Amino acid sequence: MEKPIMKKMINHPKNLVREELEGYTAAYANWVRLVEPNMILRANPKSPGKVGIAMGNGPGHEPAMIGFVGEGILDVNVPGEIFTAPGAPRIVEGIKAADHGAGVLLYVANHAGDVLNAGMAIEMAHDMGLNVESVVLWDDIASAPPDQPEERRGIAGQMFPFKMAGSAAEEGLSLSEVKRIAEKARDNTRTLAVALTSCINPVTAELMFDLPVDEIEVGMGVHGEAGAGRRKLGTADEIMDIVAERVIRDRPYVAGEEVCVLINGMGSTTLMEMFILYRRLAAILSSKEITVYKARIGNFITTQEMAGFSLSLCAVDAELKHFWDAPADCPYFTVR
Amino acid sequence: MEKPIMKKMINHPKNLVREELEGYTAAYANWVRLVEPNMILRANPKSPGKVGIAMGNGPGHEPAMIGFVGEGILDVNVPGEIFTAPGAPRIVEGIKAADHGAGVLLYVANHAGDVLNAGMAIEMAHDMGLNVESVVLWDDIASAPPDQPEERRGIAGQMFPFKMAGSAAEEGLSLSEVKRIAEKARDNTRTLAVALTSCINPVTAELMFDLPVDEIEVGMGVHGEAGAGRRKLGTADEIMDIVAERVIRDRPYVAGEEVCVLINGMGSTTLMEMFILYRRLAAILSSKEITVYKARIGNFITTQEMAGFSLSLCAVDAELKHFWDAPADCPYFTVR
Repeated sequence: MEKPIMKKMINHPKNLVREELEGYTAAYANWVRLVEPNMILRANPKSPGKVGIAMGNGPGHEPAMIGFVGEGILDVNVPGEIFTAPGAPRIVEGIKAADHGAGVLLYVANHAGDVLNAGMAIEMAHDMGLNVESVVLWDDIASAPPDQPEERRGIAGQMFPFKMAGSAAEEGLSLSEVKRIAEKARDNTRTLAVALTSCINPVTAELMFDLPVDEIEVGMGVHGEAGAGRRKLGTADEIMDIVAERVIRDRPYVAGEEVCVLINGMGSTTLMEMFILYRRLAAILSSKEITVYKARIGNFITTQEMAGFSLSLCAVDAELKHFWDAPADCPYFTVR
Repeated sequence: MEKPIMKKMINHPKNLVREELEGYTAAYANWVRLVEPNMILRANPKSPGKVGIAMGNGPGHEPAMIGFVGEGILDVNVPGEIFTAPGAPRIVEGIKAADHGAGVLLYVANHAGDVLNAGMAIEMAHDMGLNVESVVLWDDIASAPPDQPEERRGIAGQMFPFKMAGSAAEEGLSLSEVKRIAEKARDNTRTLAVALTSCINPVTAELMFDLPVDEIEVGMGVHGEAGAGRRKLGTADEIMDIVAERVIRDRPYVAGEEVCVLINGMGSTTLMEMFILYRRLAAILSSKEITVYKARIGNFITTQEMAGFSLSLCAVDAELKHFWDAPADCPYFTVR
């Protein structure tokens, strides 16, 4: 792989995560604060007696997950090193910080390191008498067949359980109910991603993967994991035809259903392109008599400056619609 | 200039703007609607008797400006063709659509085509008996000396007058008062941009400008207009030292003042980098006893997938703080 020129505004790679957390919490001091060991907490904690929600994950996907700490989504985020889950002892600290007397839900993105460390953290927390439950989040249909959902990776469709269970906790539901909402949102969600370009790891200065100048990868994971295959670029409509067809067929989503849509930019794909992609998606869903309840288009879970996008659908009923629409106030996800 | 490979998800370049507007309004039908001739209007119009706010501008800078149509910012946006202001007759249609009986404020970004077409539109509107006033927005300190502000370009610092005057209109202030707030916010704002890479015009498939792989351009305009000079990349702290010093000195911002901060990404610069840049800015402002009231970091006025950022400061008093904090509900700018 050719050594790229890394044109990024950083200082020393060794201090990357600490410096971004210091800058982030300085900018948004009215929303978040930085607490040792390197955790992001809400500046105005949830009231006692409500379920707390925590997550540990590797940075490099901003605004995820630090940008979603706030009212209606996360109480605590524990960042690891770049693209690397935090260790179990730090996750335990996050669980403790999120505990307001009604127990804690821990989200675990389905990636090997995250699952291993979170599993150890849960054991340690239980040994300490903490009331914690976990939900492993998966949505990426490219990473395993439909009958093995628990083998699938967690990518941008995690936004649906994040917001829906987050609002359920905000409204005072019990830990078992908040967990049920998170699992229901997860199970109703499917995602497929397309990468157009690679990106550069800011610590190693290496390209994450290689992709020919005229090809795209369908099914790419958020760390550049190989997908369902490469193809020539094509038009926006051709790309959406492929992606939407696979996502719809996987669950399947059927006539008469309502869905929330998330089109997530990987980093450098323009909103202009994503709006053009959405235009085709709206026509496809309409032709199948699947109704869009609400849509969101933007950069939620990125992979540095990668070009590409993912499409996530989440089938919604009255309960999930309510929690999707409920107010939220985080630096990078606000709902009035 | 070397012909680049354009890896963008579009259909035919000729239909680019129409298709993005169709997709955008389909995705956010609860917020916005598409009305001929190709204008974006609020789905729930402002109540009668409140000042309307309109703007015409060239697309290619998404989410600006279509993403800011909604409660608290714009009533009507009239996109032209890519990077090209709309013609005067279409701006007049936009003014008419924004009129709810209390007059209309028209924003004009200070670029030659925008100023020319808006000027003609204002004349036509006055001839039709419409009550319309305009404010030309400028903030880019690289484009003219401090004693010629009216020669400066309008770039990302326009967000301050957008939001502050938008909220003033929402609260029912008169046209002359809304115009006063817009001018006050503009006059209190200074911006300087840094470009790290060029970008590709999606219609022509040409690079917008050329920049050596290890150099950055300080003072770059939103269409790649030449800036204050090129230099080697350097660290994040070194870049922010240069940018902050020039912005602070230009007005100047002085000890004891309060400022709102906007760090605007040009397209492909990661939030991680922008948080690290903000960390240094916070230290610089603190050392000069300038207090940050609120900060926003994100992609507001982009230039396709260009890498780079701009720093905007806006000196705020109680009045401007009130309007910055007032509720807003647009697809790409929500304040609770």
